[in-house]
Amino acid sequence: MTTMRIEILNTGTELLLGSTANTHGTWMGQELVKLGLRVQRQMTVPDGVAIEEALHESTHRSDVVLVTGGLGPTSDDITREALAKVLGVEMIEDEAALRSLHEFFEKRNKPMVDANLKQAQNLVGADILPNNNGTAPGIYAPPRLGGEPSCAVFLLPGPPRELYPMFHDEVVPRLKALAGVEAIDNVQELKFVGIGESDFHEKLDEDLAKIDGLEVGYCARLGEVDLRLIGSDDVIEQGRKLTEACFKEFMISDDGAALETVVVRSLAAAGKILTTVESCTGGLVANRITNVPGSSSVFTHGFVTYSNGAKAQLIGVSEETLAAHGAVSEEVAGEMASGARKVSGADIAVSITGIAGPDGGTEEKPVGTVCFGIATAGGVATYREIHPRSRLDFKQQASQRALDLVRRVLGGDQ
Amino acid sequence: MTTMRIEILNTGTELLLGSTANTHGTWMGQELVKLGLRVQRQMTVPDGVAIEEALHESTHRSDVVLVTGGLGPTSDDITREALAKVLGVEMIEDEAALRSLHEFFEKRNKPMVDANLKQAQNLVGADILPNNNGTAPGIYAPPRLGGEPSCAVFLLPGPPRELYPMFHDEVVPRLKALAGVEAIDNVQELKFVGIGESDFHEKLDEDLAKIDGLEVGYCARLGEVDLRLIGSDDVIEQGRKLTEACFKEFMISDDGAALETVVVRSLAAAGKILTTVESCTGGLVANRITNVPGSSSVFTHGFVTYSNGAKAQLIGVSEETLAAHGAVSEEVAGEMASGARKVSGADIAVSITGIAGPDGGTEEKPVGTVCFGIATAGGVATYREIHPRSRLDFKQQASQRALDLVRRVLGGDQ
Repeated sequence: MTTMRIEILNTGTELLLGSTANTHGTWMGQELVKLGLRVQRQMTVPDGVAIEEALHESTHRSDVVLVTGGLGPTSDDITREALAKVLGVEMIEDEAALRSLHEFFEKRNKPMVDANLKQAQNLVGADILPNNNGTAPGIYAPPRLGGEPSCAVFLLPGPPRELYPMFHDEVVPRLKALAGVEAIDNVQELKFVGIGESDFHEKLDEDLAKIDGLEVGYCARLGEVDLRLIGSDDVIEQGRKLTEACFKEFMISDDGAALETVVVRSLAAAGKILTTVESCTGGLVANRITNVPGSSSVFTHGFVTYSNGAKAQLIGVSEETLAAHGAVSEEVAGEMASGARKVSGADIAVSITGIAGPDGGTEEKPVGTVCFGIATAGGVATYREIHPRSRLDFKQQASQRALDLVRRVLGGDQ
Repeated sequence: MTTMRIEILNTGTELLLGSTANTHGTWMGQELVKLGLRVQRQMTVPDGVAIEEALHESTHRSDVVLVTGGLGPTSDDITREALAKVLGVEMIEDEAALRSLHEFFEKRNKPMVDANLKQAQNLVGADILPNNNGTAPGIYAPPRLGGEPSCAVFLLPGPPRELYPMFHDEVVPRLKALAGVEAIDNVQELKFVGIGESDFHEKLDEDLAKIDGLEVGYCARLGEVDLRLIGSDDVIEQGRKLTEACFKEFMISDDGAALETVVVRSLAAAGKILTTVESCTGGLVANRITNVPGSSSVFTHGFVTYSNGAKAQLIGVSEETLAAHGAVSEEVAGEMASGARKVSGADIAVSITGIAGPDGGTEEKPVGTVCFGIATAGGVATYREIHPRSRLDFKQQASQRALDLVRRVLGGDQ
């Protein structure tokens, strides 16, 4: 990894009001990782004087600052002027930029107003970055433009359709030149289901820390943990081996694929058809499966049997089992899975029945109780668990477990 | 509006790598606007030493700093320690927090590992903010905890399911107390389905701008627009009247209720049962309905008929109609709805069949084509639309339209 310090500075009052989501930071972070580069900090400030303050800090702390927004024609667009002040350089009208502006409006048969003239202003000694998708050209101020600081600054337009092409065409080549290399570091993202972040800390963290040059990061979501390994190919491979020795059965992908994607891929590879029969998850498992392009080749029937009547009518759960054990029982989960498998003709059926809450719990079966069934040609297996969470989190966690049961059946892990 | 300076500090290497979108800034910005408060700056820094540096800056520049992330059990979770250093105060084990941790694991029948112990650490003199949805309690450090600076700091967990409730329960009351007011302004949030933000700009913005003292904000999501009216009760009422004169039929709620909640409420009020039969949405409509507590009283059967065979087998769509018009047709949508209504015995059935893509489009029926059917005792109505979007956005938009059809049938608007 290079030690080039990169910061992102997003400007725009609307970003801080929450009325527009800030997607620039995310997008640029991904693009920089592809180059082996890393963002040290991202900041969002409102339009106005805060920009100058933030630019001053960033340019004195970093090697590269990527700024978005504030290049438009209105009075609150002052990023150019702020940078000129911070670097202590004059501004000058750029002839080529002015010509481009005139052409932009002529092409669209619209008159250019005086306000647009400021968009042709450049800092003395800086490069104009052409914008083929809007009126605001970008600006590149190389290191030590005004003597100090030794920081390179890119001023880029806010709208993604202008920002993205300018980033690829004008920013990337200059960043590579600044970094002095083609690409430095690799990242591998391993996804795990069925264990928590604390399991990693307990069993793995210490050993991973002993690998020189390996950076480790975690991201935990409901029923899911991502482990990020960053470093050279060699240290990533060492880290991965250690990880697999501990947690192989829980690892679902090494390419960022989500659990539902892994399940659809595995079904397609095995030539198997899946059916779902859901009570408490109410269609969430089917919804996740059908989020995956191509899922229609492995999924044909989904049942949402939200009442006892529906369980009996659609997939033949017996009234006796329902009466004897209740809808939330391993017995009913088993009959749901085998019934759905039979009715649909699928190879594998997975069932979920539980108490999502907030009401409906009893002492014996509190809110959060959930039973699963999985039926294959080999028979039916059932499970009972408890996940006392909010209604939506409970549904997500139960759907996660149901999909993981299918993954395990397909992988022969069960 | 108060002049309280608020900063948001999001911590997490994954946010800067672009592997996780930073939605906290957006969400908190929206919540703070509702309180009449504004964010002056938002920053994202990686896990590790950068947190201490950023905390030092923010606490010396602002009145309130809201920090997310870094409260987990692993070695890169160091936000607590960083704040203790910056404020110059000691850490201490909090008995109540430790008890909560033990209870969290006992409830789930899982052993608590030593790594979790650090989550019971508090800063001397700070408040523990209980977390009912995870292991990491939050921390509130009041102004001048360590003597200087005069800044209040909230440490909050990263996962939204933990952050959101803690923000509402623990942060909002303290922010109001710090700002020295109950709430500066009133806010009314009106939700609309079936029109876009540009409709508001075209027909309403100019008139709303004439109301003195009314602040207007929009938040547009897929197939949905929120209009936020901020000001005194009187000006809000004026704004609402103008809005209703234009867009009453599209307004679904004035209390923040989501479309699925409105539908479940209306079904319950009318004493009607709904059934869903989904092809391209793959269970999403059923999933949204069953996200609403109490939905089991209005929803019993959901069908996901992802193949032609399932459409014929489960709800009796005729092979002839499928052959003559194709699965994505108003004819099939109509038979799906009336068939599902008959099989389930529900009062109302809504059907969706379409081409979610990325493949499967033809010249006559391009990707994004979708047909809907809605069956009631009065008969069946069908609709055809086109929404050329990404697969997931298409599903969301189609589910939105299906739920709105049910809303309109119940409201007698159709």
